[in-house]
Amino acid sequence: MFKAVLEKVVGDCDGGIGAILMGYDGIAIDQSGGEETSLDFNLIGIEYSSVMKEIRIAADVLKIGELQEISIKTSEYYVIIRALTDEYFVAMIIERRGNFGQGRYLLLRESSALREMLV
Amino acid sequence: MFKAVLEKVVGDCDGGIGAILMGYDGIAIDQSGGEETSLDFNLIGIEYSSVMKEIRIAADVLKIGELQEISIKTSEYYVIIRALTDEYFVAMIIERRGNFGQGRYLLLRESSALREMLV
Repeated sequence: MFKAVLEKVVGDCDGGIGAILMGYDGIAIDQSGGEETSLDFNLIGIEYSSVMKEIRIAADVLKIGELQEISIKTSEYYVIIRALTDEYFVAMIIERRGNFGQGRYLLLRESSALREMLV
Repeated sequence: MFKAVLEKVVGDCDGGIGAILMGYDGIAIDQSGGEETSLDFNLIGIEYSSVMKEIRIAADVLKIGELQEISIKTSEYYVIIRALTDEYFVAMIIERRGNFGQGRYLLLRESSALREMLV
């Protein structure tokens, strides 16, 4: 059920490579894509759960409000992460020639559906 | 000299609150703005230097290319961070009603000027 939503997000996004639904504890629930790349999606989930924890702590210490979204731009990829619940988040990888704005929109659009399934 | 560039970035951005030029070691070089808010800019720098280190490690482990930019959206603020050199980055805080896209553009536009001054 999660996979269908993740597949839609990746499929609808220009340059979308894959998406992963993760717990902050580093355990993946489900994922879509990634078959055609050399990227290790499980490792991506584990690394970004550490990053998300660090950013949540920072937001808490700084009292700058609840964490909603993080975008990371590297020389090769975009990574967009949306916080879903206190325990889970979703991350999507997009090629640098892909559509970053579209990816952000799609992840936002589907986050309520994912949130409802997680309850 | 850094301050003038930081002031221009903050002043030209709708909803721009402040900007800070930081080392990854958590030591600030210079900052602009922040006087009219309850935000602790020094603490922001320290917290985000930890976050940036964590994200650089993740990008390195995952082999997803060199880290260029990070955007964080909370319920109250946008935080945009651009990597400048191996040792320094610049962070800008924008109100949620402010112009996120404009902030990203301004930070990108001025990052080469900052980079040149850092050498």
